[in-house]
Amino acid sequence: MSTADADRLARAALTHVAEPGDALMGALLRVLGPAEIIHALTVGRIPPTALAAVPGLARAMARWAVRLGGAPVTATLDEWLRDGIRLVCPLDAEWPSQLDLLGDIRPWALWVKGTADLRYAGLRSVSVVGTRAATAYGAHVCTQMAAELAERGWTVISGGAFGIDGCAHRGALAAGGSTVAVLASGVGDPYPRGHHDLFRRVAAQGVLVSEWPPGHAPTKPGFLVRNRVIAALGRGTVVVEAALRSGALNTARHARDQQRPLMAVPGPVTSAMSAGCHEIIRDWGAVCVTGARDVMELLAFPGDQLPGPPRGPAVPRDVLDPVQTRVLEAVPSRVGWGPARIAVRAGVDFDTVMTCLGSLAAAGFVGRTDRGWRLLTKPT
Amino acid sequence: MSTADADRLARAALTHVAEPGDALMGALLRVLGPAEIIHALTVGRIPPTALAAVPGLARAMARWAVRLGGAPVTATLDEWLRDGIRLVCPLDAEWPSQLDLLGDIRPWALWVKGTADLRYAGLRSVSVVGTRAATAYGAHVCTQMAAELAERGWTVISGGAFGIDGCAHRGALAAGGSTVAVLASGVGDPYPRGHHDLFRRVAAQGVLVSEWPPGHAPTKPGFLVRNRVIAALGRGTVVVEAALRSGALNTARHARDQQRPLMAVPGPVTSAMSAGCHEIIRDWGAVCVTGARDVMELLAFPGDQLPGPPRGPAVPRDVLDPVQTRVLEAVPSRVGWGPARIAVRAGVDFDTVMTCLGSLAAAGFVGRTDRGWRLLTKPT
Repeated sequence: MSTADADRLARAALTHVAEPGDALMGALLRVLGPAEIIHALTVGRIPPTALAAVPGLARAMARWAVRLGGAPVTATLDEWLRDGIRLVCPLDAEWPSQLDLLGDIRPWALWVKGTADLRYAGLRSVSVVGTRAATAYGAHVCTQMAAELAERGWTVISGGAFGIDGCAHRGALAAGGSTVAVLASGVGDPYPRGHHDLFRRVAAQGVLVSEWPPGHAPTKPGFLVRNRVIAALGRGTVVVEAALRSGALNTARHARDQQRPLMAVPGPVTSAMSAGCHEIIRDWGAVCVTGARDVMELLAFPGDQLPGPPRGPAVPRDVLDPVQTRVLEAVPSRVGWGPARIAVRAGVDFDTVMTCLGSLAAAGFVGRTDRGWRLLTKPT
Repeated sequence: MSTADADRLARAALTHVAEPGDALMGALLRVLGPAEIIHALTVGRIPPTALAAVPGLARAMARWAVRLGGAPVTATLDEWLRDGIRLVCPLDAEWPSQLDLLGDIRPWALWVKGTADLRYAGLRSVSVVGTRAATAYGAHVCTQMAAELAERGWTVISGGAFGIDGCAHRGALAAGGSTVAVLASGVGDPYPRGHHDLFRRVAAQGVLVSEWPPGHAPTKPGFLVRNRVIAALGRGTVVVEAALRSGALNTARHARDQQRPLMAVPGPVTSAMSAGCHEIIRDWGAVCVTGARDVMELLAFPGDQLPGPPRGPAVPRDVLDPVQTRVLEAVPSRVGWGPARIAVRAGVDFDTVMTCLGSLAAAGFVGRTDRGWRLLTKPT
């Protein structure tokens, strides 16, 4: 087994032995490699350098060691891969590098299921969250906003829960867009069960993501820990409906603490489900947004075409240079192709195709699936 | 006629000859006294010093001179006074000194009708404005907010128009509070006629105010000019409902330009009548307020009791010192008494009673009517 393979397997095991967000594991990963950590847990011997560098480590190692038994092995990983579940690790091409800003509490690895490329999905993405007890108003506004964002090539990130989260995913899917559901359960058995059909559609058009192994049953603290990933993945976070001081504001707090753009949708002051939104607008400086247009205006990169009246794709095809256009036309629309095959079809060399695919992906034209590159659903 | 009387009469005439907000008249008033200006207009001769100090003055003098004919004379003033209409001039005890911040566009004088003392009413006051085309939601929120402000001893200032303005006055009146209607018509013939009963009640519990003489019929530009006074009188301005880029935002613009606290009430993003509120929250930095409590929290003076759960008066009686308490107990609750009579009843000297009445008025306990001092309706 190569070092890289050993480290992947070790990170898979880490998602089982250490709770996501455990800063001691994060600190340890700065001192030891994943495989070294698993080895230390297995043999019950901690290198003195690690002990010196991470206060409180001995007790944590004992805690982690007792969970080592059920950790995934190579055979399990292969089995999950056959079920369409892949492991995405830091340094992997699909790793969303914005997660590295979480420092010691960044995920050890992510379990991913679905057709979208997580990294590219995250490039132009918005986290849209809110209460499970959505009102008809909130559901309407959220679905509409998510659909408009998806139409412009923005990925909608949410937590897969009932209420606002569900509306966010559904709106994006209805517009033929990509969406990411970041779960507190394993992606092999996504929670809540009532969203079974929704999760199937998310996997078909976007991705399901979890820090926990595929079969994991969610815990209450897990939902809160998971929220930091929702906030970190999106370029900004929008709260659509939330009661005062409710759990629905937890993701907003993460976005604020991560110094990411935080937005909230206002509503009737007579609605308890909008009170949390008004609170964070007034007290946290969340930006008051009334729809997708406001969100895109706030999060647009310099050079992005600003949303005015609907105009088609966020970056028009005619700004592409001839070579980029040739490569784009060579990318298949449904199944994924490798870059070599695309290079042959486009009649350009391999390095050129790689450069072009990178720009095209950043502009939202193409995406990398685990089977290769393909066209993303185009805004209409 | 004393100089003071001549100046009063001259200011009354100025409200007739020069349009409110005419900055040339404001500039001229820095060079000449009111009586000197009326004299110059009458004889058609402008002092060279004034001509040198105010560019464009000659043409303006000609414009003003043609309107000199209908200007009020002493007899007219006496007649209006019998109708309960008084003239309030700068330096008068009842002059709201915050208007002086308007500089050259401050009113030359104000025509006032009603029982409240305009200066004291303005000390703890909020301007509450919005669209004439109020929705049921806006009307409900505005009435409720104005009533709660009035219950806590805050004066509600608005423009007397249909829609949000009317709700603001009505809410304050319903709570037994004081309210100020700043009109673009004369206070003797307040516009709109459909608010006849409302204006009667405003005069009975608060005041009607206008920069134009009592019989003046309003003009379209007059409403916009008037708005700067609404913004300048209140300690802050709240927009309850306004369409995008609508006239209802004109007062908000004045408040912003005057660097006064500007607030807006959010509403459904699906309501066009809340779109202006959301716009100024997002783009002008207006504070998102959901009710009277938020408004009071923002506008409270240091030392004001912060509004928590309802607690009774904004400043509790028990913070008053024994002498203040004695004076407060000597103030009549319905009719107004002069300070000398109150001094006798309280058993303190005249200077003490004047000092105490000032503090008590600032704290919202007592008010000066044109008939003297009386208790204000107490928060319950």
